[in-house]
Amino acid sequence: MTRIALWISYDGTHYAGWQRQHNALAVQQAVETALFKLTGAAIAVTGASRTDAGVHAAGQVAHFDITGPIPPERYAVALNGLLLPDIRIRASAQVPDAFHSRFDSCGKTYHYQYWNAPQGHALYTRTAWHIHRPLTLQTMRDSLPPLLGEHDFAAFLAMGGTPPHTTVRTITDLTLTQQEDLITLSVSGNAFLYNMVRIMAGTLASIGTGKLPPDAFERMLRPGSRLDGGPTAPPHGLTLAEVRYAPALVFE
Amino acid sequence: MTRIALWISYDGTHYAGWQRQHNALAVQQAVETALFKLTGAAIAVTGASRTDAGVHAAGQVAHFDITGPIPPERYAVALNGLLLPDIRIRASAQVPDAFHSRFDSCGKTYHYQYWNAPQGHALYTRTAWHIHRPLTLQTMRDSLPPLLGEHDFAAFLAMGGTPPHTTVRTITDLTLTQQEDLITLSVSGNAFLYNMVRIMAGTLASIGTGKLPPDAFERMLRPGSRLDGGPTAPPHGLTLAEVRYAPALVFE
Repeated sequence: MTRIALWISYDGTHYAGWQRQHNALAVQQAVETALFKLTGAAIAVTGASRTDAGVHAAGQVAHFDITGPIPPERYAVALNGLLLPDIRIRASAQVPDAFHSRFDSCGKTYHYQYWNAPQGHALYTRTAWHIHRPLTLQTMRDSLPPLLGEHDFAAFLAMGGTPPHTTVRTITDLTLTQQEDLITLSVSGNAFLYNMVRIMAGTLASIGTGKLPPDAFERMLRPGSRLDGGPTAPPHGLTLAEVRYAPALVFE
Repeated sequence: MTRIALWISYDGTHYAGWQRQHNALAVQQAVETALFKLTGAAIAVTGASRTDAGVHAAGQVAHFDITGPIPPERYAVALNGLLLPDIRIRASAQVPDAFHSRFDSCGKTYHYQYWNAPQGHALYTRTAWHIHRPLTLQTMRDSLPPLLGEHDFAAFLAMGGTPPHTTVRTITDLTLTQQEDLITLSVSGNAFLYNMVRIMAGTLASIGTGKLPPDAFERMLRPGSRLDGGPTAPPHGLTLAEVRYAPALVFE
């Protein structure tokens, strides 16, 4: 038995998220189907992040166990030959038998893109949230520091659903950059609650348009409630940029 | 009669280029069809750059003449309501009656993107040329300066077809930047020959992989022939970034 890790990019536009669904095609299922075509075996693939429907990935990581003659680094090219172009395995490698893509991750980075102009841009339609009203970048930047560090992010949890046993998370890095009309929020943390980045991105947009006060994040962390935040930003602006591991497990 | 200029972005993946074709859908035709739906009149739209099939645009400019009650700046939103999301009018404005999107342009900037890694990236499949073999960035950068300034670019003209009355062009700016595995060539010039940027990008890739010597561009300008260059790079890596005009005519 060999444990293989995959480094995966996908355009989430046409997928029901990472996790296998009953009535819609998920990325996990597409990868498992390609593995079945390749090996003839039904192999479960476990991903580091259960990205939502419509969310993209530049650096998802997943693992699976296999026996067979294929060299570990060849799974990338072999699977790419069986997948549609909107899923690309960036690399494959053998990892220790005890490696777990989700439990061993020490951090993740997500990018959230806003296209901020009266009209849309054809090349960002799929990957950025179009916000018509002008965003005030400086106000948005100034609102971010309270989020840094360890906090109870209960107010950043989607309502309904089963709450996790703890809502304490640590945000290690937050940046907001602008390139003409494209604004990108980069969020790094040890782990994230369900919808946490999208609630952060939606609240940040409301701060930027003036719908919410500049201290909205502080209010949410006091702790406040989900109702103190802005809307959950749409999924297509979000990209899982990176999953981090102890150095020995990094792909490149 | 009012002359209106459009600032247009498009994902060229599903279009037969800018210029109207007989048996395939071009961006020009899509815009003209939307204008017809909007006004009931058959109106010809003239673009600044005749981008090839599969080439994208962030900042194409086009103009047309119209009479009617629609305020000039409203054409953007009105046309966007009638176009597919892969064409987005970024803005519309009234321009002087004598304005011509192509003839009045004093320069254009194109971006050519290479995705340089053994495997592809799902989010760059449509907009970057995937080159598997490693590119040597420094060699590529060092090869560029001879292209700057006024030269006879006859060797950068697609073979066959009607030659233009002059093949002298001026390149005003050339940069090559890298962000992880994404390499972007930015080329600015007063005007460009048919396929000139794609021949430049294809030759640059061959210099980067070592298939062509570092002085390949110098040989092509001596003047050499098209055969001294590399392949014509595929269209989907190319984006028309900007068309420049005298300051009074700029959109923002």
